[in-house]
Amino acid sequence: MSSAFCHSVRVYLEDTDAGGIVFYANYLKFFERARTEFVRAQGFEMRRSLTDGISFVVAGLALDYRRSAYLDDELNIFVAVKSYKKTYFEVSQWAERKSEPGVSLVQGTIKVACVDFATGKPRRMPSELEQALKNKEQ
Amino acid sequence: MSSAFCHSVRVYLEDTDAGGIVFYANYLKFFERARTEFVRAQGFEMRRSLTDGISFVVAGLALDYRRSAYLDDELNIFVAVKSYKKTYFEVSQWAERKSEPGVSLVQGTIKVACVDFATGKPRRMPSELEQALKNKEQ
Amino acid sequence: MSSAFCHSVRVYLEDTDAGGIVFYANYLKFFERARTEFVRAQGFEMRRSLTDGISFVVAGLALDYRRSAYLDDELNIFVAVKSYKKTYFEVSQWAERKSEPGVSLVQGTIKVACVDFATGKPRRMPSELEQALKNKEQ
Amino acid sequence: MSSAFCHSVRVYLEDTDAGGIVFYANYLKFFERARTEFVRAQGFEMRRSLTDGISFVVAGLALDYRRSAYLDDELNIFVAVKSYKKTYFEVSQWAERKSEPGVSLVQGTIKVACVDFATGKPRRMPSELEQALKNKEQ
Repeated sequence: MSSAFCHSVRVYLEDTDAGGIVFYANYLKFFERARTEFVRAQGFEMRRSLTDGISFVVAGLALDYRRSAYLDDELNIFVAVKSYKKTYFEVSQWAERKSEPGVSLVQGTIKVACVDFATGKPRRMPSELEQALKNKEQ
Repeated sequence: MSSAFCHSVRVYLEDTDAGGIVFYANYLKFFERARTEFVRAQGFEMRRSLTDGISFVVAGLALDYRRSAYLDDELNIFVAVKSYKKTYFEVSQWAERKSEPGVSLVQGTIKVACVDFATGKPRRMPSELEQALKNKEQ
Repeated sequence: MSSAFCHSVRVYLEDTDAGGIVFYANYLKFFERARTEFVRAQGFEMRRSLTDGISFVVAGLALDYRRSAYLDDELNIFVAVKSYKKTYFEVSQWAERKSEPGVSLVQGTIKVACVDFATGKPRRMPSELEQALKNKEQ
Repeated sequence: MSSAFCHSVRVYLEDTDAGGIVFYANYLKFFERARTEFVRAQGFEMRRSLTDGISFVVAGLALDYRRSAYLDDELNIFVAVKSYKKTYFEVSQWAERKSEPGVSLVQGTIKVACVDFATGKPRRMPSELEQALKNKEQ
């Protein structure tokens, strides 16, 4: 999937737990950072969206944990658009160690909904973002 | 599902994000706290397990986000055993506001695997825990 | 200091790091939870304050780390009012293991400022809170 | 202080709170990332240290919060060695917005102790690190 967006993160002490590995919930932070950079690369800043009354919220996700990541690891976090609709989009995301390309540590699907910041009700995505997602769809 | 295990948490500033709601990854922290208390109620301390070379790791999960939780909310986090095998178990977990019993905010399934702390390889669960899960199975 | 406010927390996997101890920044979460409950006990909900355009922000802190806390530990987090002014107050806070009362693990001073939510500028604390702090001052 | 080490971070949703700003405890994560990269730049990996039975723990800190950081901000986090002894070193750290160089948002001093991983007792720093810190001392 050569057209997937890639964002790199480093594993710091804050990301690990007493099991000596990355705490499972923290992959969601890595995934969110990558999605944010992916959306930014399409020209959308998160903060401007909030100012415009648009909030992007995670509506659902499924993750499969295969291998552990450790302190000091450099990870590549990938984002690939699976589908999009008027009010939400779905992405595939996965983490690989930079030193082991092609070996997925954690893999999942995340559904992101566009909602009105004030009411929390679904609202149509900005048309430019919809267009950008269309172009990126696998 | 009257026999589900329940653990209460309060939403603090640390749990929220600039969207004014609980950050989606933080439900996994709430869910882990509830699972930890559930396992403790069966007589298992996490730390003793680590000392015994046993580590419980999340192998997979699926979450459905339906409604937001806010600063100061009191949440009930539920745990119900769905199934168990020799080396892992699956639980249903969900969050409700104390003030709105029966209205699920976030609902999901989490698969927890028992692994050897040193090697990370799957290992058989302690038989007492297997027995306890058997008794709790829905 | 028998009149200090006390709030109990449990150490979960989320709080620990690969060093096997509570991650140093996470004591600030424990301390914030205790301060929030302390302020709530005086009749102030954090969320209502936000609605009223009042935000409480940490303006400064000094912490001394003496002993480590570990997974599964039950900690007592203490809050004692040191001083208060029109726009801020200072508290002493410290953490003890429940099983070792009187032995401080982490000890510090936190200065909390009352600011206008929109402008971030200092503003006078609600008079009821000022009164409550006055009564609690050591 | 032109010789200070600088590490850049981006503010993501995970770093913010319902007050719309970076949660105060999270600056300690930013500061730790910068210190880790600073130590790495001297040739020390955190993980290898753990393997060697060496753990670096924060023994004390003092922070002064002056201005808020917001979602999407790019921050420069600085590290400057203040002093070092056989078993610990002290650094000055501060955060600036990239767009406002020279305007400190949060400023502080952190004392990092070198301890034995197993016993938690102070131990002498690796001599190469001591030498590196000596060269960096302001």
